[in-house]
Amino acid sequence: MKPIKVGLLGLGTVGTGVVRIVEGHQEDLSSQVGSPIVIEKVLVNDIHKERSISIPEHKLTEHAEDIINNPDIDIVIEVMGGLEPTKQYIMDALERGKHVVTANKDLMALHGRDIMAKAKANHCDVLYEASVAGGIPIIRTLMESFSSDRIKKIMGIVNGTTNFILTKMSKEGAGYEEVLREAQQLGYAEADPTSDVEGLDAARKMAILATLGFHADVALEDVEVRGISQIKKEDIMFAKRLGYEMKLLGIAERQDDQISVVVQPTMVSNAHPLASVNGVFNAVYVYGEAVGETMFYGPGAGEMPTATSVVADLTAVIKNMKLGVNGLRALTPYKEKKLKTDDQISYKNFILLHVEDKAGVLAQITQVFAEYDVSLDSVVQQPNSHNPDAEIIIITHQASQANMKKVFKHFENLDVIKSIKSAYRVEG
Amino acid sequence: MKPIKVGLLGLGTVGTGVVRIVEGHQEDLSSQVGSPIVIEKVLVNDIHKERSISIPEHKLTEHAEDIINNPDIDIVIEVMGGLEPTKQYIMDALERGKHVVTANKDLMALHGRDIMAKAKANHCDVLYEASVAGGIPIIRTLMESFSSDRIKKIMGIVNGTTNFILTKMSKEGAGYEEVLREAQQLGYAEADPTSDVEGLDAARKMAILATLGFHADVALEDVEVRGISQIKKEDIMFAKRLGYEMKLLGIAERQDDQISVVVQPTMVSNAHPLASVNGVFNAVYVYGEAVGETMFYGPGAGEMPTATSVVADLTAVIKNMKLGVNGLRALTPYKEKKLKTDDQISYKNFILLHVEDKAGVLAQITQVFAEYDVSLDSVVQQPNSHNPDAEIIIITHQASQANMKKVFKHFENLDVIKSIKSAYRVEG
Repeated sequence: MKPIKVGLLGLGTVGTGVVRIVEGHQEDLSSQVGSPIVIEKVLVNDIHKERSISIPEHKLTEHAEDIINNPDIDIVIEVMGGLEPTKQYIMDALERGKHVVTANKDLMALHGRDIMAKAKANHCDVLYEASVAGGIPIIRTLMESFSSDRIKKIMGIVNGTTNFILTKMSKEGAGYEEVLREAQQLGYAEADPTSDVEGLDAARKMAILATLGFHADVALEDVEVRGISQIKKEDIMFAKRLGYEMKLLGIAERQDDQISVVVQPTMVSNAHPLASVNGVFNAVYVYGEAVGETMFYGPGAGEMPTATSVVADLTAVIKNMKLGVNGLRALTPYKEKKLKTDDQISYKNFILLHVEDKAGVLAQITQVFAEYDVSLDSVVQQPNSHNPDAEIIIITHQASQANMKKVFKHFENLDVIKSIKSAYRVEG
Repeated sequence: MKPIKVGLLGLGTVGTGVVRIVEGHQEDLSSQVGSPIVIEKVLVNDIHKERSISIPEHKLTEHAEDIINNPDIDIVIEVMGGLEPTKQYIMDALERGKHVVTANKDLMALHGRDIMAKAKANHCDVLYEASVAGGIPIIRTLMESFSSDRIKKIMGIVNGTTNFILTKMSKEGAGYEEVLREAQQLGYAEADPTSDVEGLDAARKMAILATLGFHADVALEDVEVRGISQIKKEDIMFAKRLGYEMKLLGIAERQDDQISVVVQPTMVSNAHPLASVNGVFNAVYVYGEAVGETMFYGPGAGEMPTATSVVADLTAVIKNMKLGVNGLRALTPYKEKKLKTDDQISYKNFILLHVEDKAGVLAQITQVFAEYDVSLDSVVQQPNSHNPDAEIIIITHQASQANMKKVFKHFENLDVIKSIKSAYRVEG
């Protein structure tokens, strides 16, 4: 049987995992797809670098053309990351009729539309399961298994670095800076952690999931983002005491055809299955009108989990090749994107206020909520041990974001409030 | 665009859900598959019966031939359940070139091989996502997303009735008989609950999952089954005190190519994600050599969740029709089935012994474990408040089933042991 020849762009963590799986599971893979699979060429920065796997030197190249222009290669796997020259390599490969499997969330979130259009024009597959939540097959689930349903809400813990940090802060009562340094030492956070801790990585993944779940073309700039770098350890302790865990959640919602997508630190009720997703694990909770509540849990990153998703996509491309149906199963957004306005977005809120400790303060504060139609679930006042002032913890019922903004604006001009110490969305 | 015409065998709970989704989501569905979908005929027992949905009377029939021999019908959805005449209807439909979507786990576990062979011979699709774990897309996940991996272990809470009963017993300290009656009143358990509580329903589902996960033809009779009807509320309280929840788990394992599949009450460590799956929810935990730990959680039964899976399969069949590739994506087992023997199956054990309360008893008992090479994790002796005897709680390390059987046999002849009160597998 003629082997299927694959070119690999990149031989970092995930690329190494791909080589290991294609070689280690060769017998199983070829039984399933009906041909041997051969990694024909691998693009690397330095062919002489020492590596943890052995690859014959003639298979390594420092020139992308050796893969993209290679007529023997049917499928290109892109695991080099970055936007350029990566995008150009992928566009060129598609132009030459090569199918593409990629793990690149940045590229798919920012240029997915161009890439899918190029793929369609060239009758090629582009699959990208590994781009979101590593080993969790959430993209295939949204595209195929829930194709029959109307998805209303997707909530995801889709960034392992921040979940590691928040889990540590919660379990050990440690501060943000301290845990971040530990995560960096362990290799769970990068030297410049901005993209993870400020929520940008999660936002890219949520744009991809929302596009697939809602069939509308959700772009990165449609996602409202707030990261975890401002979270104080006191906030996490308050959350725990009230029965919540602090998580960086991506939340994509649809009501009728109005969409909102946010990434923000959220207090998740212990009763919700997302609350117990700890450490570097990821999970995506999907609520469908018909199916109800579901959750998909697994490793969100790492060499072998991510490579599992890449190679699953590779076998799907090969099966399509055998059937002659490449490029025909892509899901194209068919709904016009309508973003919710602030008065259409509503959720529960946790607010921690630092106030003067004198008679009538509580009445003044609750009066502000009433004025803007925000009803309260609970209000707890407690003396502050450090000074003569007091702290008030408020949990609201569902309230519109527009009204909450008015409340916060009003608070700025209320003398009895010394500061709004914290404010978080509450879910579950 | 020419509509795709569907025949429905059965209009019970799931059938009604299928009609609701196909009608309610028609616009979304036809956008995805490129044709309207029409439910053309529905087989019922009594066309005059009152129903919760309105279907024009000319679409109802009491004769299966009106669907199976109907040349206008492309796809048959089987949601009538049972083995006969259901199997014959499906075989006849396939013979006439109609694709089949079924939610029938009994049929797929017992006659899956015949049905898939008939489908292949007639170039037809047979899809059965709804047959295991209702709304959880575990079959597609095993067949496609984890095609690249070598799955080592599948553990499932795949029966909602028993999970409802065990959850109630655990949370309320109630007895089995009492909770079973409540489950029957709520409609979560049938008048004759045998198939659920004795683990047969779970065994059928595990045979299907093991076949797909391990690529070997696992039959129902290969599954060792023990139900929940003998579980005492004391057992559950002991489990909780030690940090475990009692769950009816299906456990399919593979080591090299040796397989074992069991269904049995199991004490699951609180640290394991399966421990917090409560009530009628289902979850399937999959451990893959490369991907590591994953879990898929959702509603295991019910009208709309199960119908979601049925209609997802329906859209997959229609997409295959449009591409002309029906019958070509089935996964056929390609490995010889080799079942593990008792000495190849090993796990941790919880054992509760009722013993005489006198010196030297503990030494005699631990000596028996040592004799058969079973090492112990913990041994706790506690006086029994009801009589002068004592109870000993033992947790073993991993021990082979063969050796454990020898231990139990030896215990029968040991005078100081009055009875083996309970013994359970321990996981997590």
